Amino acid sequence: MRDEREWGQFHSAENLAKSVAIEAGELLECFQWGGEADGSRVASELADVLTYCILLADRVGVDLDDIVMDKLAVTREKYPVGRAKGRSTKYDEL
Amino acid sequence: MRDEREWGQFHSAENLAKSVAIEAGELLECFQWGGEADGSRVASELADVLTYCILLADRVGVDLDDIVMDKLAVTREKYPVGRAKGRSTKYDEL
Amino acid sequence: MRDEREWGQFHSAENLAKSVAIEAGELLECFQWGGEADGSRVASELADVLTYCILLADRVGVDLDDIVMDKLAVTREKYPVGRAKGRSTKYDEL
Amino acid sequence: MRDEREWGQFHSAENLAKSVAIEAGELLECFQWGGEADGSRVASELADVLTYCILLADRVGVDLDDIVMDKLAVTREKYPVGRAKGRSTKYDEL
Repeated sequence: MRDEREWGQFHSAENLAKSVAIEAGELLECFQWGGEADGSRVASELADVLTYCILLADRVGVDLDDIVMDKLAVTREKYPVGRAKGRSTKYDEL
Repeated sequence: MRDEREWGQFHSAENLAKSVAIEAGELLECFQWGGEADGSRVASELADVLTYCILLADRVGVDLDDIVMDKLAVTREKYPVGRAKGRSTKYDEL
Repeated sequence: MRDEREWGQFHSAENLAKSVAIEAGELLECFQWGGEADGSRVASELADVLTYCILLADRVGVDLDDIVMDKLAVTREKYPVGRAKGRSTKYDEL
Repeated sequence: MRDEREWGQFHSAENLAKSVAIEAGELLECFQWGGEADGSRVASELADVLTYCILLADRVGVDLDDIVMDKLAVTREKYPVGRAKGRSTKYDEL
């Protein structure tokens, strides 16, 4: 779709990173005044964040599934079950 | 992994939406002073954004692939090739 | 201080807007898992957001007090006391 | 103005921190596809960021001028003119 519309020219990694942050702000707006949010609006804003994540991954040449799996492996090591169970403490303070 | 560590209690949709925005800020930090960024740092921050997106989708009970595809269909309609080609103008100004 | 360090070259309006968003993400991180936050950390992150706001206002040639006062006048009109009292509804839905 | 409308109830520090991030995203949107932006739109979005900063400072009981000045003093020390001149390198890498 991007190619049909010749939008690739605007899609520098930097512009896409800005776009992810902009859409993340719109997602957050669903929860601006509290924890209750309209489900379909959340889904729609989340889709926007993801769309730019996909375009950015494509732009910098990484595979989304790979990087999420890699990160998960790192997080598992940083937060051992024994110490992290039931806590939201950051790993360097555990 | 989340369940082993009993982190589900912190993972309200609201907290996850905040987390997406926080990580999007860290991703943006790779490009704070210009368009050049370290590829592996971008991949790592992008993975963090995505991880929280996945957790949020799970929390609100939507399928990521579905919502991205739905959004894509909407965007195709909003931005017809004829009018949107080579332009970054927003749909309501096209 | 910026001038002594010759940082003006990095301080395009765009880079400063990114910086405001990055620091806003760090401010939000104080509240990532709930409403309780360390006061001095909040103050420190808030100061970072503000510093970039001041630099951006300077860059685009506006006076901070003026624009906040102008905006306040607009908001007063958008949200009449009679209709907006005790509600967080957005003005176009009031 | 906030008090007339009884909006204080929505203005927890957490909600205000979210609001700063949301408005920072809208400010960034002015620069989504490049460095050129409409000056009055930038001023308007910047005013929104600042308004929530002011409300948050009030909420957590800090004085904006004080915290910006304190931060400035810290930054001066972290980035000595001799080493930081003309560079955007972060202090821990200087």
